[in-house]
Amino acid sequence: MMTYKLFGPGPVDISEKSYTALTQPVMGHRSKDFVELYHSVQPGLQELFGTQRPVFLSTSSAWGVMEGAVRNVSSQRVLNCMCGAFSDKWFDVTKRCGKEATDLRFEWGQPVEPDAIRTELESGAYDAITLVHNETSTGVMNNLEDVMEVVRSFPEVISIVDTVSSFSALPIPMDELGIDVMLTGTQKALALPPGLALFSVSERAMSRAEAIEGRGYYFDFLEFLKNHEKGMTPSTPVIPLIHALQSKLEEIAAEGLDARYARHVSTNESTRKWVKENGFHLFPHEDHASVTLCCIKNSRELDLAAFNQKLQQEKKFSINCGYGKLKGETFRISNMGDETEETMAELFAAMDDLLDEFLPRSVV
Amino acid sequence: MMTYKLFGPGPVDISEKSYTALTQPVMGHRSKDFVELYHSVQPGLQELFGTQRPVFLSTSSAWGVMEGAVRNVSSQRVLNCMCGAFSDKWFDVTKRCGKEATDLRFEWGQPVEPDAIRTELESGAYDAITLVHNETSTGVMNNLEDVMEVVRSFPEVISIVDTVSSFSALPIPMDELGIDVMLTGTQKALALPPGLALFSVSERAMSRAEAIEGRGYYFDFLEFLKNHEKGMTPSTPVIPLIHALQSKLEEIAAEGLDARYARHVSTNESTRKWVKENGFHLFPHEDHASVTLCCIKNSRELDLAAFNQKLQQEKKFSINCGYGKLKGETFRISNMGDETEETMAELFAAMDDLLDEFLPRSVV
Repeated sequence: MMTYKLFGPGPVDISEKSYTALTQPVMGHRSKDFVELYHSVQPGLQELFGTQRPVFLSTSSAWGVMEGAVRNVSSQRVLNCMCGAFSDKWFDVTKRCGKEATDLRFEWGQPVEPDAIRTELESGAYDAITLVHNETSTGVMNNLEDVMEVVRSFPEVISIVDTVSSFSALPIPMDELGIDVMLTGTQKALALPPGLALFSVSERAMSRAEAIEGRGYYFDFLEFLKNHEKGMTPSTPVIPLIHALQSKLEEIAAEGLDARYARHVSTNESTRKWVKENGFHLFPHEDHASVTLCCIKNSRELDLAAFNQKLQQEKKFSINCGYGKLKGETFRISNMGDETEETMAELFAAMDDLLDEFLPRSVV
Repeated sequence: MMTYKLFGPGPVDISEKSYTALTQPVMGHRSKDFVELYHSVQPGLQELFGTQRPVFLSTSSAWGVMEGAVRNVSSQRVLNCMCGAFSDKWFDVTKRCGKEATDLRFEWGQPVEPDAIRTELESGAYDAITLVHNETSTGVMNNLEDVMEVVRSFPEVISIVDTVSSFSALPIPMDELGIDVMLTGTQKALALPPGLALFSVSERAMSRAEAIEGRGYYFDFLEFLKNHEKGMTPSTPVIPLIHALQSKLEEIAAEGLDARYARHVSTNESTRKWVKENGFHLFPHEDHASVTLCCIKNSRELDLAAFNQKLQQEKKFSINCGYGKLKGETFRISNMGDETEETMAELFAAMDDLLDEFLPRSVV
């Protein structure tokens, strides 16, 4: 059994309270008890999404909804904005769904550029665009305000925004920004187990879906809406995670959104401070670095695998040693979820203890 | 909070042991700890599936895999065998995936007929067939041996069999029967919470998938196989349910498969006995009635909604009052999962207590 605390890109550490919430009795998913549970999570979710629209509960990882969104809204061509492993993959997934797609690539570590998006969209070729808000693979957080300002001027283009690793850590006002499909998962900043995706769909994206063939059933937006009106989900949902979500939304309300957002800013600043003090630097430029996760260049050539193994075994903490082509070249420390200044300080102290031992003599 | 015990068609009652298993620490899904967990469930699942093939873990309800299977294996035409709400719906879902489909309909309460299937398949129009083994809406259990004997003689036809509410309650030897895609969910006879689907894919179905366009990503069979080889799943999986599955497989091994199967036969017989003794009769003919669930004709015109409400409130048990067009006309009692002669007897005693009070005077 795993004995260490996760400070990676997600799943992140889950509280006792959230684990306990998983054990509430499962009811029939067509029962009054379920409808009550379903309704209970709507106001909190709508507040976090910054939307008046319903928030749907999909029993899947976020990838399911990412695929489903593309199937629901595009019959022409999708513009996939790419700047890291997950946004790159979305281009691949879009094509696998049989959709026409264009790859708008930016170097890993760079954010997407609104002007480049504008130039592409001006071609008139597109009816949808995909964007990953926070690229956990590179630690880049894209500027949603600037991107959405551009996208909003193309009313035929449905925007699909993955907020998997940023949702609830900072304000992302869906309605105000004009995001058409906003989606997230439970195992990142919400600090819940994986297995449930949350998403909301604008009215115009819903109208678009009506005319699209081959949407299927499991991720069909119209089915979600139809069932939402009864307080239900199209298919049997992962009820323990909805119980845990209910519990987490209560916690979030108790902390207060402003305090929650401020906590993420401050724990992120502490992480950046630790990075500098230890002679490392962030992989992306600080100006577009994430507030939920630091992707750190392994400039001191730490043996990351051995370091993390010892950190897990001796200190009972785990960081992440890079993703995809950045494996070994970067390491990642998350401040998502329930982490505080105190719990981050515990991690830093543990890492400090091991760092001397691991750093190459030439550098020391 | 729900306070009654579920004897409906699923989710069914979940044991304390299974709930506790949900609370084991979640690890990173690309970690060694996850690979260990993934491998640990394979032998038990392969035994229950009766297969040498890998068993895949899909973070979804069974409907996701039912849709995915159709997307993975058919480019020509699907024959949807229909005899109840779920098999009927599969026809609709197949078309929604943009696939050509034919509805082979049998009256609700009747099983599918192997000869009718043969006649259709002889047309040469089909490259896939869907079948629901146990139709919980009508309480019919189809004869898989007879159906698969027919299907096996059409080597171009990939068979997709939903064993959602029969899996693990009786032997369903996938390899021996020649089932190409066998799928189930966790919230029925496994008595786990919903949110995880299990499925296995024959080599020839896997080869078929290679040539099919538009499979997508989330339910792509080839992605499942590729990740299986690393002991992983394509997307972040619902880890608490995999922990609970691991725990349940240990229980199943401890009980022994023969004892488990015998227990389901005997609790089903007791239910049928209660049905007769109380002047009711099964909705389907006894010869093709399910061994995991009784769908009972409401021939005594019980006020089912009121009866079940009182059963829930006073006796802390819940049955089911019929599905779809059989709502109110039938009620359903499940003997899936962990139920024993003793626990079924508790339900029957509670129902007996209430029955006198509820039966119309004219009948009494």
